[in-house]
Amino acid sequence: MDKRTEDTSAEGALAAVAHDYSRLLIDLFGAMAYGELSAFERLSSDARFSPTLTDRLALGRLAVAEFQHFELVATHVQNSGGDVEQAMGPFVASINAFHERTKPADWYESLMKHYVMDAVSRDFYCEIATLLDSDTRDLVQQIHSAETQSAYLLARLESALANDPRLASRLALWGRRLVGEALTRTRQVSLERGVVGRMLKDDDGAQLEAEISRIFTRLTRNHSYRMNALKLTA
Amino acid sequence: MDKRTEDTSAEGALAAVAHDYSRLLIDLFGAMAYGELSAFERLSSDARFSPTLTDRLALGRLAVAEFQHFELVATHVQNSGGDVEQAMGPFVASINAFHERTKPADWYESLMKHYVMDAVSRDFYCEIATLLDSDTRDLVQQIHSAETQSAYLLARLESALANDPRLASRLALWGRRLVGEALTRTRQVSLERGVVGRMLKDDDGAQLEAEISRIFTRLTRNHSYRMNALKLTA
Repeated sequence: MDKRTEDTSAEGALAAVAHDYSRLLIDLFGAMAYGELSAFERLSSDARFSPTLTDRLALGRLAVAEFQHFELVATHVQNSGGDVEQAMGPFVASINAFHERTKPADWYESLMKHYVMDAVSRDFYCEIATLLDSDTRDLVQQIHSAETQSAYLLARLESALANDPRLASRLALWGRRLVGEALTRTRQVSLERGVVGRMLKDDDGAQLEAEISRIFTRLTRNHSYRMNALKLTA
Repeated sequence: MDKRTEDTSAEGALAAVAHDYSRLLIDLFGAMAYGELSAFERLSSDARFSPTLTDRLALGRLAVAEFQHFELVATHVQNSGGDVEQAMGPFVASINAFHERTKPADWYESLMKHYVMDAVSRDFYCEIATLLDSDTRDLVQQIHSAETQSAYLLARLESALANDPRLASRLALWGRRLVGEALTRTRQVSLERGVVGRMLKDDDGAQLEAEISRIFTRLTRNHSYRMNALKLTA
């Protein structure tokens, strides 16, 4: 084998890795984008059933923020030479199914769903982002640093729960169901599309399972903290 | 009556006129704001039933634009010392009732509803704005100059209607119903809240009726042009 062939083969391997990495990012952004698009639609549909105009505006603003995040991701995918609609394709059915399984019965359940899901997604994507290049990490953190949103949701839920033990026990139950469904769905996406697997350096199945378990342990623990912040049992 | 009393009384009259004018603006902005808020919620709820992801994104963007118009009006009301929620109050029931009476049966009817209603509102508020101060006129025109929106709706409806005579006859009927309901509702708002009446210089009921009739003739004529642009009978 002469020097030139060797070079070409090394370049080929490098190109294959780069190609694989860029496909992985497309998958990751596709899942994020569709999650945000559907959160936007669900939130803004639910807004109409808010108890007061103030609440309607607040939910409307949260919904619009989701759409703006979607647009950020879509622009990023486009600038990377991808197509956001194609990228979302593989995630449409599972995210729709998740929403069908977790239809809020009223406005308070909508609020709780957003409180739980926004945080679980944020945690999940930020975990994933630590394994990625700095540009991608910056984008993910930019999108998921919406502290104001959580602050509003927390305050609004606190005021609704104060002196309403029946609502508290209903929302505690609802929170447990939501996080169960959310973690199941996220784990499926991680494994099925191999998003998490492809990020780890080797193909050791046991190591992959262990890493995913660690991530999910942290997600579950953070969820408990957030439920505790509402004085609800996770 | 000494000079001072005379001045005070002139100032008083002036203050009363200014007060009346500012209340009129609050009503006008309240109606606009609630119209936009509810258009946002309806559009984004309907987006989910779009035939393709491209259509969902397009409807999502239209919805977000409505919310941004709402925010512009809300900020303006706040800067003028008013409260947008209070300003919207008197219009909630009638605008909700309008939406209940005109529920689209599918995505194409949603599209048509937005095509018709966006244009009728734009025409109506721009007519009204010609009677107002230049600041208010600028704001109304800024909000209602969304040419891009109409262009998308027109193109999308044209492509849906091409070679589909059944859809064409259904949407022609739907367009007639919508504009009928819209003009009835708008006329009610104009008369009940006296928005148009308070703008005219005198209290001559006949002149008021004549002016309102002229405005509605123009609205109807513009609607016909837009239906013709889709080769539909208005």
